Amino acid sequence: MLKLLRINVQKSTFQMAACGMASKKTPNVAVLLAGCGVNDGSEIHEASAILTHLSRNGAQFQCFAPDIPQMHVIDHFKGSEDCSHKRNVLAESARIARGSISPLSDLLKDHPKYDALVIPGGFGVAKNLSDFAGKGPLMEVTEDVQKALQGFHECKKPIGLACIAPILAAKVFKGVTITLGKSCGDEWPYKDAIEAAQKMGAKTEEKGVLEVTYDCEHKIFSTPAFMYNGKFHEVDDGIGNMIKELVKSIA
Amino acid sequence: MLKLLRINVQKSTFQMAACGMASKKTPNVAVLLAGCGVNDGSEIHEASAILTHLSRNGAQFQCFAPDIPQMHVIDHFKGSEDCSHKRNVLAESARIARGSISPLSDLLKDHPKYDALVIPGGFGVAKNLSDFAGKGPLMEVTEDVQKALQGFHECKKPIGLACIAPILAAKVFKGVTITLGKSCGDEWPYKDAIEAAQKMGAKTEEKGVLEVTYDCEHKIFSTPAFMYNGKFHEVDDGIGNMIKELVKSIA
Repeated sequence: MLKLLRINVQKSTFQMAACGMASKKTPNVAVLLAGCGVNDGSEIHEASAILTHLSRNGAQFQCFAPDIPQMHVIDHFKGSEDCSHKRNVLAESARIARGSISPLSDLLKDHPKYDALVIPGGFGVAKNLSDFAGKGPLMEVTEDVQKALQGFHECKKPIGLACIAPILAAKVFKGVTITLGKSCGDEWPYKDAIEAAQKMGAKTEEKGVLEVTYDCEHKIFSTPAFMYNGKFHEVDDGIGNMIKELVKSIA
Repeated sequence: MLKLLRINVQKSTFQMAACGMASKKTPNVAVLLAGCGVNDGSEIHEASAILTHLSRNGAQFQCFAPDIPQMHVIDHFKGSEDCSHKRNVLAESARIARGSISPLSDLLKDHPKYDALVIPGGFGVAKNLSDFAGKGPLMEVTEDVQKALQGFHECKKPIGLACIAPILAAKVFKGVTITLGKSCGDEWPYKDAIEAAQKMGAKTEEKGVLEVTYDCEHKIFSTPAFMYNGKFHEVDDGIGNMIKELVKSIA
């Protein structure tokens, strides 16, 4: 019993050191990007809405991305692979971040500085942060992304996930509750992701583009965004709703 | 006198045919992009705000970009040129347009379908739509971009220009009134553009990030956007103000 108590005390001390002091004045949010463009990187408008709504809700933010090659390059005009050259996830994500971005490895060292983690959607989540695009429910999340998610979770800090990004939580947090939108209707072209998440043990809520799912045990917010064939301002509003709740939840 | 009258009638008939019928129900707006990323293409958040606010104000839109090579590729993480490969302005702009984009040459044929033209900023305006980045007030606007601007102007259709994009109007429309932000203060890093516009004969108004200049003779709206080192939501709000006025002006 004494031994167990000691272990707990040690764990608690470790957690206090590792989790650091969250800022009480200006929430400081890490945003994890996965490239630049819906088909091989982060979805641009979701990422932009996340940064704009963080700013609008009084939060400061820092963007991060893994310093790794993209899975591939898609010519977004032709809709086919461009094999003429390779691109780097960090360098392409820097386009969204206007140059103000750090390697994901820095976030793993510095995460006590941040009060929350937010990840936009886009196929980059399924191609560069995980291999969901190729393997479906047999997916793996890349080691550094998994560490980042677990780091925020262990410190009881909120995580916000838009569009397909909740699939990362489905893999990393057994039994998590997320939304990936709705499982029927022509306006929901990526329904298969819901079944994949369920196969990995996640509970999925059917939510509209303006709605937000909150798993209070895991402190995970999710919203469908462009999982829905919606209008741009609907996606902006849905992400706005998620970011508002997330910032409010930062004690 | 009779001859002059005939010429005028002919011109008027031509204009009616070329300008077409603007939709009375849903405003249809052409958005001209110049790549994807602030340093060598369109500024992503300005472009996203334009599309989102068009959608929010009940307008439909179609994106266009010239099918030409980019002047160069900037690695937005390192802040230096990446000479390893070339990129195409249309293919990169398609990242912002989520694939739904047409070559600028189509707009030159189809401009009667559109009620207004909007151009976001970013160095792509000064590198891919013109050579302002290299030549300053001795700049030339590329032929197709000039034709597009003149086409909308001749049909008395409004044009909305954000950030550095009003420099195109300074060159194409002698004596136009625009804003490129303010000419003093540390938060205005691109003041030189104001002097260049004045040298080309433009009248410049000193406006804040939330403000809009309207030249009613040319029907040209402009707003400073990221000419100001502003917060993301301030830039979003400034562009929102411009788009709201522009959509309202579509009779």
